[in-house]
Amino acid sequence: MLIETVKSEIVSHLSYIVGSNDEAAVIDPRRDCQVYLEIANRWAAKIKYIFETHRNEDYVTGSSELANLTDATIFHGPGLPWRFGETLQDNQEIKVGSLKIQALHTPGHSPESTSYVLTDSEAGDQPVLVFTGDTLFVGDVGRTDFLGEEMAPVMSGKLYDSITNRLFPLGDEVIVCPAHGAGSVCGGKISEREISTIGIEKKTNPMLCLSKEEFVKQKTAEHHATSPYFRKMEEFNLYGPSILGAIPHPRALTPSEFKKAAETAYIVDTRTAAAFGAAHVKGAFSLVPKRLSNVGWVAEYSKPILLVVDDLEALDFAVRNFVRLGLDNIVGYLRGGVEAWYKEGYPLAKAGLVTVHDLKTMVDSKETIRILDVRRVNEWMEGHIVGSTRIYLGHVPEQVDQLPRDLPIVVICKTGNRSSFGVSVLLRAGFDQVYNCLGGIEAWIKSGYPVTRTDEKA
Amino acid sequence: MLIETVKSEIVSHLSYIVGSNDEAAVIDPRRDCQVYLEIANRWAAKIKYIFETHRNEDYVTGSSELANLTDATIFHGPGLPWRFGETLQDNQEIKVGSLKIQALHTPGHSPESTSYVLTDSEAGDQPVLVFTGDTLFVGDVGRTDFLGEEMAPVMSGKLYDSITNRLFPLGDEVIVCPAHGAGSVCGGKISEREISTIGIEKKTNPMLCLSKEEFVKQKTAEHHATSPYFRKMEEFNLYGPSILGAIPHPRALTPSEFKKAAETAYIVDTRTAAAFGAAHVKGAFSLVPKRLSNVGWVAEYSKPILLVVDDLEALDFAVRNFVRLGLDNIVGYLRGGVEAWYKEGYPLAKAGLVTVHDLKTMVDSKETIRILDVRRVNEWMEGHIVGSTRIYLGHVPEQVDQLPRDLPIVVICKTGNRSSFGVSVLLRAGFDQVYNCLGGIEAWIKSGYPVTRTDEKA
Amino acid sequence: MLIETVKSEIVSHLSYIVGSNDEAAVIDPRRDCQVYLEIANRWAAKIKYIFETHRNEDYVTGSSELANLTDATIFHGPGLPWRFGETLQDNQEIKVGSLKIQALHTPGHSPESTSYVLTDSEAGDQPVLVFTGDTLFVGDVGRTDFLGEEMAPVMSGKLYDSITNRLFPLGDEVIVCPAHGAGSVCGGKISEREISTIGIEKKTNPMLCLSKEEFVKQKTAEHHATSPYFRKMEEFNLYGPSILGAIPHPRALTPSEFKKAAETAYIVDTRTAAAFGAAHVKGAFSLVPKRLSNVGWVAEYSKPILLVVDDLEALDFAVRNFVRLGLDNIVGYLRGGVEAWYKEGYPLAKAGLVTVHDLKTMVDSKETIRILDVRRVNEWMEGHIVGSTRIYLGHVPEQVDQLPRDLPIVVICKTGNRSSFGVSVLLRAGFDQVYNCLGGIEAWIKSGYPVTRTDEKA
Amino acid sequence: MLIETVKSEIVSHLSYIVGSNDEAAVIDPRRDCQVYLEIANRWAAKIKYIFETHRNEDYVTGSSELANLTDATIFHGPGLPWRFGETLQDNQEIKVGSLKIQALHTPGHSPESTSYVLTDSEAGDQPVLVFTGDTLFVGDVGRTDFLGEEMAPVMSGKLYDSITNRLFPLGDEVIVCPAHGAGSVCGGKISEREISTIGIEKKTNPMLCLSKEEFVKQKTAEHHATSPYFRKMEEFNLYGPSILGAIPHPRALTPSEFKKAAETAYIVDTRTAAAFGAAHVKGAFSLVPKRLSNVGWVAEYSKPILLVVDDLEALDFAVRNFVRLGLDNIVGYLRGGVEAWYKEGYPLAKAGLVTVHDLKTMVDSKETIRILDVRRVNEWMEGHIVGSTRIYLGHVPEQVDQLPRDLPIVVICKTGNRSSFGVSVLLRAGFDQVYNCLGGIEAWIKSGYPVTRTDEKA
Repeated sequence: MLIETVKSEIVSHLSYIVGSNDEAAVIDPRRDCQVYLEIANRWAAKIKYIFETHRNEDYVTGSSELANLTDATIFHGPGLPWRFGETLQDNQEIKVGSLKIQALHTPGHSPESTSYVLTDSEAGDQPVLVFTGDTLFVGDVGRTDFLGEEMAPVMSGKLYDSITNRLFPLGDEVIVCPAHGAGSVCGGKISEREISTIGIEKKTNPMLCLSKEEFVKQKTAEHHATSPYFRKMEEFNLYGPSILGAIPHPRALTPSEFKKAAETAYIVDTRTAAAFGAAHVKGAFSLVPKRLSNVGWVAEYSKPILLVVDDLEALDFAVRNFVRLGLDNIVGYLRGGVEAWYKEGYPLAKAGLVTVHDLKTMVDSKETIRILDVRRVNEWMEGHIVGSTRIYLGHVPEQVDQLPRDLPIVVICKTGNRSSFGVSVLLRAGFDQVYNCLGGIEAWIKSGYPVTRTDEKA
Repeated sequence: MLIETVKSEIVSHLSYIVGSNDEAAVIDPRRDCQVYLEIANRWAAKIKYIFETHRNEDYVTGSSELANLTDATIFHGPGLPWRFGETLQDNQEIKVGSLKIQALHTPGHSPESTSYVLTDSEAGDQPVLVFTGDTLFVGDVGRTDFLGEEMAPVMSGKLYDSITNRLFPLGDEVIVCPAHGAGSVCGGKISEREISTIGIEKKTNPMLCLSKEEFVKQKTAEHHATSPYFRKMEEFNLYGPSILGAIPHPRALTPSEFKKAAETAYIVDTRTAAAFGAAHVKGAFSLVPKRLSNVGWVAEYSKPILLVVDDLEALDFAVRNFVRLGLDNIVGYLRGGVEAWYKEGYPLAKAGLVTVHDLKTMVDSKETIRILDVRRVNEWMEGHIVGSTRIYLGHVPEQVDQLPRDLPIVVICKTGNRSSFGVSVLLRAGFDQVYNCLGGIEAWIKSGYPVTRTDEKA
Repeated sequence: MLIETVKSEIVSHLSYIVGSNDEAAVIDPRRDCQVYLEIANRWAAKIKYIFETHRNEDYVTGSSELANLTDATIFHGPGLPWRFGETLQDNQEIKVGSLKIQALHTPGHSPESTSYVLTDSEAGDQPVLVFTGDTLFVGDVGRTDFLGEEMAPVMSGKLYDSITNRLFPLGDEVIVCPAHGAGSVCGGKISEREISTIGIEKKTNPMLCLSKEEFVKQKTAEHHATSPYFRKMEEFNLYGPSILGAIPHPRALTPSEFKKAAETAYIVDTRTAAAFGAAHVKGAFSLVPKRLSNVGWVAEYSKPILLVVDDLEALDFAVRNFVRLGLDNIVGYLRGGVEAWYKEGYPLAKAGLVTVHDLKTMVDSKETIRILDVRRVNEWMEGHIVGSTRIYLGHVPEQVDQLPRDLPIVVICKTGNRSSFGVSVLLRAGFDQVYNCLGGIEAWIKSGYPVTRTDEKA
Repeated sequence: MLIETVKSEIVSHLSYIVGSNDEAAVIDPRRDCQVYLEIANRWAAKIKYIFETHRNEDYVTGSSELANLTDATIFHGPGLPWRFGETLQDNQEIKVGSLKIQALHTPGHSPESTSYVLTDSEAGDQPVLVFTGDTLFVGDVGRTDFLGEEMAPVMSGKLYDSITNRLFPLGDEVIVCPAHGAGSVCGGKISEREISTIGIEKKTNPMLCLSKEEFVKQKTAEHHATSPYFRKMEEFNLYGPSILGAIPHPRALTPSEFKKAAETAYIVDTRTAAAFGAAHVKGAFSLVPKRLSNVGWVAEYSKPILLVVDDLEALDFAVRNFVRLGLDNIVGYLRGGVEAWYKEGYPLAKAGLVTVHDLKTMVDSKETIRILDVRRVNEWMEGHIVGSTRIYLGHVPEQVDQLPRDLPIVVICKTGNRSSFGVSVLLRAGFDQVYNCLGGIEAWIKSGYPVTRTDEKA
């Protein structure tokens, strides 16, 4: 048995390819799926099957794309009116070389959620590993809020049962391969470690130390952000997204072409927060590479995208990640970057940049400013600056109009990247005294400045 | 915790890099160690430590090379007069970011063999995985014959104790990361699967189902080939091999320069068995890429090497793998390949090539030939052609002079690659009617031709 | 002014990209046109124009493909009913940054043939270089036989006039950038050097030392091979070939899939002549990479192609070059190569392989063989083996049935590559005693064996 | 004959590799010389000779480096006590395959300057091209000031004679391949076009339209900047620089390691001018990639270098270019970039950034500022802002202490990159109100703001 993990960094998505005797199968492929073909080529194996653990909500599945290139059969779990692929029944088995992959229906995260248990004939009937999708993560379990608030208790109960009645019996020694790692919006506190076993999770996963009642209570009390683009993903992943064939190649636009195109498109600037602050094209969203998926909070699927990037590598990264979110309509990028723009004498926009030391001085000098903290509630509760207000980053676009415009606003997050997006949203809304705090709460704390843990009031 | 496995294919060597909070550690690095730097760069982590599970016998350690590029500290297990790095005592712990790596002295394969247990503060004190070196493989255990026949029972007993008293107590759920995968000469029947857990091994590893007495008996009865280059590796790995700095770049030689250089060097031809059979430079050893380490049976460390390869990619592959065996003295390669050679009108040597159907016809027609099977004894016992003689491939060079030269010899292995090396050894020894059987026993059996499993007599 | 030459090796096609002030133009792009985008990106320039020197006969133009990716305007010369792009009139000028590109109608090779004269405002009105297409090569001039034998004298006269009346007046100092280099079938004796000037050509090009009368006489007497695929190219290049979007990715086929697919496809084996001789899939054409365009002699545009290659790099090379010939229907390649094939026990075909020394021995021993020389007539006239018969390689497929089958045939060319294709054609036609002479006439002569220059009788 | 130009962008250095019949020669190789090996490999040729047109002043020659990898012989022109390589006499010839390369002693730029005339046996005795080194450029001629002011008239006269008496007689049709392109400090107004002929230069090169007297007068009157690092280069290139073996790999330093290392090293920040302005490590020099060679004005060869870069590609670019200047002692780079730095809470320095519109407003509102223009005198004379002061960029470091500190200073150049270096020099000198004008004079003029051409007074 050969196995390789393919990680898609921004959405912290983990997909897997397994191979045996010239045959291979992929679990939860991503849309830019050339990578699986390359691995299979290296193994001299042929991708025969694609397994989906569930209808994903946070990225566009690459199953159709990969099937198109390989003739592989796509398998889903039971319970959804899939428009593509085939549905496996609970306990149904598929052979891949000398491996056996068995569907284990594990509803909870979603009704159709299915885990796949792998046995390796070299090790007899002993299950070796299980692909748990969004059912069980390392250190956490899947969200149960997608069917709405009323259904959350039911789904949480199902999730508990799936884990304890279906996964636990596989044995402590079975390796757990989940669909997401740390940073995914599909879990709250997924561990950075991407590999575990049933036994380790039983002992160390905080959710699995609870009784069913406590488990359901805690799951139901969780607050997760649901980016509006999720609905679009669900639609794509049920009906089958359109086939790309190849990663799109956005056109290089001169400053004047870019200016014209910007009239009907929106601009995403993926340069660093510092560079964005120093000089950007007016109206651009600031989304550094590792925070690109936040585009989901403002993306309009019918509107074209323009990019401002540092170089061609950054362009490829942005395009690839947008494609994973179904944002294929990237019409061009600013050739020569912001430098080409200002060499034309075209107007530049700026955002204020402050260090934590600058901010401390502002606070100490009783300068009248507002501090807007855009982190998640759990981050906020671990420590924030006294007097700051919290609005979760994703909610800033819809709440921006309710923010007072009388005072300068300093936006802060953990390090200065998410806050740069927040700043760009405020600038687009016409705010004119907006500062990004470079270094964020992390640098603030490292510098020995005080934070409070008082529960959020705002 | 981040982890990545780096596999070196020919010697089936598995090394690992783990990272946490900008720090990284490498376990058993290979000598062409740029790969670890690239991963660490991707993680934005710094390699601080290098752990060696034991003094390797089958490849040159890359610890010094990597330490030279990173200032990392090298750690060894106790019991050998190491000339480089530092020795860890049993149970001593090293921190790597939020990880803890603890030395667990597990002698048996060798006196200094040490496993490294990793705990991840995200999962409390629970051991997450263990790097078992050559102590425990997936589906097998390490060799115990390196200290000689007399010591084998003692070492086997130690190995049993190390596994059962030190590794088993870690818990069924702990992930096992061994130093070798299938195909390594450091184990007999290592599984192709490269990941396991203590629990899976306890249930499915055939060696771990035995009593200590049976275990020692079976280990002592094992027959392993010990390539003469192993001594050289042991020397390198105790004293610290010389620093390469960069992979050597062999010079491109014209046919006439190659001819001249060949007077004092030996030639390795890495093209396919078919291409070698069709036309090669006289005297060359036939070693297809995946069988390159067999050069250990004939390598002379003081003598320069010349290469005949298909293209620059094949050249890089050969150089890289030779360097892993400490064979750095690669002086050049034949520019333009065998084609350049014969375009000069230089003489070509050939090897006969027969398909399994040709061979069947020869056998059926009672043609007087010898069939020389060069597989391992365990492969032979699973089925061989009636009337064939077995000499293990590695022993052909030293036994070649005892082989009768009166009849044509057809050399056979599993598929035709190892036999091509055997053929080349015979040709160098002056045999003139030598055939390589393309497809080998595998094609023979697939074609429905008969084999016997009668115990080896030869 | 920036300029780069892009060479497509097999058809010895030279295309050019020039740039100035963020604008770029491409002359005679090839179909796998990503390379121009990469250069333009490096220059931070935008490809605005594409110039075609003529309707090419030996490869599919990449103009439409490139225009599709860039919105560039395609320009042609006058006189053909182009179905795509725009027609430039004689002397019409286009600006590219600070450059001026002027159409110079230079019929002769074909009626619409147009050269493009480049002036650089940095050097005033002084023409700097001229893209001569197939009108003027380094050391030769274009073919004039494409309109048929009767038209050859007229076209030759036009060509003479175009060169002497339109190109010569540009000045001795003007740099000449032709559309083909040595080895192209579009010229007879094009120099290996790919750059020249009007002055150098006037002094050293043998064709330009002739009077118009002699020129026409000599051009009319030339014998060129016209591969049947040329008609297809002309059709593509007049109407505009279909848009590829991306280079096709042939599927990896298992031996059994390959076997099945081969029932309705033809097989091209691009491995070395030696490897092909040693073992190949029955029925395959032997076409080493640098001779791939010979596929044009046997290609059927409606029939799918299967490939046997050494590795993925060789696969990419073959696909890319087939696409340049409009052969897009490449359905798959043999995964694992011939080795995978024979490991299944599937039957292998062989071709005999002889060195020049073997051949000399055969000849000397009066062994009754036929020697079939497949080189061009001009190569033949420079020296061939006494008693050999010549049939030009491209004509072997149509004449194969007229060849006697009573004796063994040794096929020979210059080095052994083209002869391998000849051998494969004979084997497909059922000949059973066919040998390829490795090293060919080149090695024969270097070995000091005798040749004759007696005019061809055959 | 095969030829390829290898361009090193920052120093606008042009080197060449020519090949014929498996042999190759390189003219004026750069120090990171792997590129020539790759081309030679592609040609299946062996680099036998290296020709130096003169002892270079602006970069370290790669001759020794390349000779070390290839055993090629290095040839120089006559007249200097070379410590490596061999000296060719005037008119001496060397054969490279079917090519002939003849030394043509052409003193003037320097006493030993030598051009190399190439003839191609395919074109008889006709010279095809000439490598003119720093004797003749496209649109300009070499500098004659390196031996000092007194010698300039003599050297200028020699240069005139070399060009008219040695190069012109080769013929109008001969192609000119110079050692530098536009932007080189070795010429004043070299054309962007990198290829020419003797005839084109005779007609269009402004220097070649002059009488000898005028030529000498004009050359003597020229003012060139001579970076202090030139002396170092001359020393390296006479004695032979040390062998690198491989491009150095600077270590990734954590912010705290970087901080410590910075105590004894100097920092070069290669990010964009905007990013530098927004946030940088105090004391860093701002040198965007294409302006890296300006490091020569401040480099201390005995002091280690630290880098702040955008990514690993930018790191490679910086290292490669520093190595070309003999700056091998690059000890490390800031891992994680400036973001990692400010996440630690480490202090950030900033530079003011103004657009041309901001600057216009400042000027119009009679705000009391100084405008420091750091362009070359010839750029300045083509138009500058009224009231601005000019100090050539390279002279800012030595004159910085004479600048008044009472008013804010806006530094301006053509686009904002060189001025960023100027800004960083001022900041290091303790100036605290320093602004970089993004867009520079180019954007200023494009925005329709007024400039004066009044001769420089300052």
